Amino acid sequence: MPENRLWIGALGGVTEIGKNMYFIQYGDDIIVVDCGSKFPDESLLGIDLIIPDISYLLAHPDKVKALIVTHGHEDHIGGIPYLLKQLNLPLYASSLTLGLIESKLKEHGLLRQTSLHRIDSESILDFGSIKVSFFRTNHSIPDCLGVVFDTPEGTVVHTGDFKFDMTPVNRQYPDIHKMADIGKKGVRFLLSESTNAERPGFTPSERLVGTHIEEAFQKADRRIFISTFASNVHRLQQIVDAASLTGRKLALLGRSMVNVVGVSQELGYLNVPDGMLVEPAEAAKLPPHEIAVLCTGSQGEPMAALSRLANSSNRQMEISTGDTVLLAANPIPGNERNVARIIDNLYVLGAKVIYGSRSELHVSGHGSQEELKLMLTLMKPEYFIPIHGEYRMLHHHRLLAEAVGVEGDKIFLLKNGELVESAGGVVRQSGRVPAGQIYVDGLGIGDIGNVVLRDRRQLSADGILITVITLSQSDGRLLNEPDTISRGFIYVRNSDKLIEEINQLVVATLEKLNQADLGQWNVIKQTLREALGKFLYEKTKRRPMILPIIIEV
Amino acid sequence: MPENRLWIGALGGVTEIGKNMYFIQYGDDIIVVDCGSKFPDESLLGIDLIIPDISYLLAHPDKVKALIVTHGHEDHIGGIPYLLKQLNLPLYASSLTLGLIESKLKEHGLLRQTSLHRIDSESILDFGSIKVSFFRTNHSIPDCLGVVFDTPEGTVVHTGDFKFDMTPVNRQYPDIHKMADIGKKGVRFLLSESTNAERPGFTPSERLVGTHIEEAFQKADRRIFISTFASNVHRLQQIVDAASLTGRKLALLGRSMVNVVGVSQELGYLNVPDGMLVEPAEAAKLPPHEIAVLCTGSQGEPMAALSRLANSSNRQMEISTGDTVLLAANPIPGNERNVARIIDNLYVLGAKVIYGSRSELHVSGHGSQEELKLMLTLMKPEYFIPIHGEYRMLHHHRLLAEAVGVEGDKIFLLKNGELVESAGGVVRQSGRVPAGQIYVDGLGIGDIGNVVLRDRRQLSADGILITVITLSQSDGRLLNEPDTISRGFIYVRNSDKLIEEINQLVVATLEKLNQADLGQWNVIKQTLREALGKFLYEKTKRRPMILPIIIEV
Repeated sequence: MPENRLWIGALGGVTEIGKNMYFIQYGDDIIVVDCGSKFPDESLLGIDLIIPDISYLLAHPDKVKALIVTHGHEDHIGGIPYLLKQLNLPLYASSLTLGLIESKLKEHGLLRQTSLHRIDSESILDFGSIKVSFFRTNHSIPDCLGVVFDTPEGTVVHTGDFKFDMTPVNRQYPDIHKMADIGKKGVRFLLSESTNAERPGFTPSERLVGTHIEEAFQKADRRIFISTFASNVHRLQQIVDAASLTGRKLALLGRSMVNVVGVSQELGYLNVPDGMLVEPAEAAKLPPHEIAVLCTGSQGEPMAALSRLANSSNRQMEISTGDTVLLAANPIPGNERNVARIIDNLYVLGAKVIYGSRSELHVSGHGSQEELKLMLTLMKPEYFIPIHGEYRMLHHHRLLAEAVGVEGDKIFLLKNGELVESAGGVVRQSGRVPAGQIYVDGLGIGDIGNVVLRDRRQLSADGILITVITLSQSDGRLLNEPDTISRGFIYVRNSDKLIEEINQLVVATLEKLNQADLGQWNVIKQTLREALGKFLYEKTKRRPMILPIIIEV
Repeated sequence: MPENRLWIGALGGVTEIGKNMYFIQYGDDIIVVDCGSKFPDESLLGIDLIIPDISYLLAHPDKVKALIVTHGHEDHIGGIPYLLKQLNLPLYASSLTLGLIESKLKEHGLLRQTSLHRIDSESILDFGSIKVSFFRTNHSIPDCLGVVFDTPEGTVVHTGDFKFDMTPVNRQYPDIHKMADIGKKGVRFLLSESTNAERPGFTPSERLVGTHIEEAFQKADRRIFISTFASNVHRLQQIVDAASLTGRKLALLGRSMVNVVGVSQELGYLNVPDGMLVEPAEAAKLPPHEIAVLCTGSQGEPMAALSRLANSSNRQMEISTGDTVLLAANPIPGNERNVARIIDNLYVLGAKVIYGSRSELHVSGHGSQEELKLMLTLMKPEYFIPIHGEYRMLHHHRLLAEAVGVEGDKIFLLKNGELVESAGGVVRQSGRVPAGQIYVDGLGIGDIGNVVLRDRRQLSADGILITVITLSQSDGRLLNEPDTISRGFIYVRNSDKLIEEINQLVVATLEKLNQADLGQWNVIKQTLREALGKFLYEKTKRRPMILPIIIEV
């Protein structure tokens, strides 16, 4: 590829929600924006986490000048430790974002070796051919940045995640005048996030949630339990304020809640009155109307605090009749059933539960259609690349861009890895770099592929049947009865007769093989798999994995 | 239990959505209402279906006088074949319900042996101490019945599933005057469904959907594909009407769609103009504006017609740029991701997709809070048992009942199997009968229990590691290198070294055992499981199932 060209691409984050990772390259300078992770869906059995494929960056380690992180959510920072283990590069982020990344790097033993740079919306960075500046945006976590890249092929703007909250809880107002200036000077390419592109209107201010939290605190006469996303520091602040107003102490349950409250207090993003925070053990002794408990688990995670409270299996606190439980978060698609189960259990305990969209205890952190149009109007880009969304969201964002005047053929809906190129002012979609899903399972990164997942799927549905046959080394004769064992296939107490029939079938199948076949273990195994598979499917309409093992003595 | 008592209980359907099955017993007369099935959630690996535990009925085969079926949805009829295989009893249902049950019994080879009785809202049945009559309700399938039981302990009313649709598509108006009469005469116990007890207001009429379907048909200039629940015959009728109005032929894709359209046409519940239905192959040849395709798969089922169309893997039809796709059904909780994936794929194909609650292409078949209060007001029961719902729904239904004047201590929130008893006018919750989840997996009914499921869960997350050791029968000496195989654990190409280390560990572990232990296979196996489990967790942070197999030669 010639040097004097600009490339824009995503290594993650388009046609998906999660693992955001974008890059801008001009000549020998590559700047990476974000490095997120994503949670696996239920088809990826046993997988803990998905991270982006960074092989393009690993192939050009000298060109990668910086990782800029727009904000501290997992889908933007979750992949950073895995990236830094393979590629040591300087990292730039705002104060809170950096605080959250540091806890992560500490866990992975990477803190010392990494060059961390604190920036804010006024910072200006110079990476050779690319100059970088920033603007402040609002989102469901403080300290979010949009990024402006000045390149020889014009200005590229990456919005990060945003909404336009004109009454933000922490008074970090959106840099709307700066955005207008950027747009006025001329934006060649806009990359803007698409999460709520299907949603009409304007997302309500986070303050709306505060009003309803305060109301609920005023009404409650016994203990209050409230669960939300730990990273939503604005909401945590409003919970602290409501507790303060109603004279309640606050206890924290859940590791990530303790961590985020600690980091954001330390960095000045969360103001908690002195003496308000108490340990759960201490809280348990206070009168019910003097305590509020802030806990993790708003997505129904089975091991998190709220789920344990609902099952009465939390060791430190318990929920009893008349307590109020607030779910200040909507379930993310896929989590509805787990959350519903928790609500059921809370009602069984006699709690008053306040939940669901009608309770207005949650607003989105992402701008709706009118806000996406406002960003497009402020930036008035020549070219538009909708990012951060599944295909239908990108599609709807395209329609919004067309509605405010961007020409249809200047909008690119990219897949991960696909590139938009600008060379001497000529823009086109061109070429691609490797991109994909890297699975993290335990300590293994990328060692689980389709074969292992296919096996796990078969094992999960119908289990396994193992039959061990012992052959004589001298004449290939069967020395023992076959030894047949199953797991996850059929209840053992019911299977004695079936196992006996299987063993008979194994012996009969081996007897039918001729001497030449008996020398070839692959032929024996394949023949046994087919015979047993057919027999078991007819008997049970199930297809366990069948694993013949040959032992030669 | 003495004879002169009334019992009311659920074998399925309370504290859950699905597998509805209730019974009313007076002395030696048991009447069963509905026998539904339920789909397993993602934790029940490999399970095909869940049905109620009917052991209480099997213990009293002579007392069970009848199965009355309120309507033809799977959560009310799906368990019938499994019940009838074990207990041959007369079945009473309205015309369409019976039609749908008959297709099911035919599949299971049960049609001939079963005594089927067609009833309608005017029928009166006499089962000794219990007389049964009916009233008509509206729901998302025609021919729904509420059931009235006259017993020596007073009148028991079971609503079935219902909404109050004052402008029903098929002019089957709700029997509101009859309900008023029943209430006026006095209802001792009301069992009323709770699906939408959390939802304020009044559920809109099915006609609202018709308006929006018609609008979409008017606007479309190429092919129309529309997917909905096959059993929603009202909606099918409105689709037929829209096609007729806009001069389109109609093709059917999907087995259940073909089945329901056939049954409901035959029984007069669906009026399709002559010559309108065409085979998909024929439809594919017609000009795009002359065809509409009605297909299954509105819940994102991966093998159903809509999913295949979206993946361009349907053999008979394909979707191309400019076609319109209508999703006339909301995703049931748990199905959101699959439905979203289909919408993404449809946009990639260039289709216009109309979906989501804002499109108003779906209304619920269940009454909202105002309708539940209307039913409670019409029936003005002395005792109330909310049924058909998860705990939070039953809880909210209880609050509604209290709001319209039912006394709090006369409301029973039952678990499956728990009984309400009325003896000589004295009512109390008392005793229980067996109730639970019976899993259907392939041909097996109830043969999968917690052990098999626990094994499947472990296998699904981390796979299995099998190590075969061959011991000498004479002296317990290890005869061969251990033979170690894994599936679903780790990618084989990366595991050569690991397997070697495992084999060394097996040999070392066996060497440490003393002669006495070597004689006890359980001790050998347990020791190997512990040693290998610890080693593998340290190496990989995974916990595969470890299965040592000992062969003695």
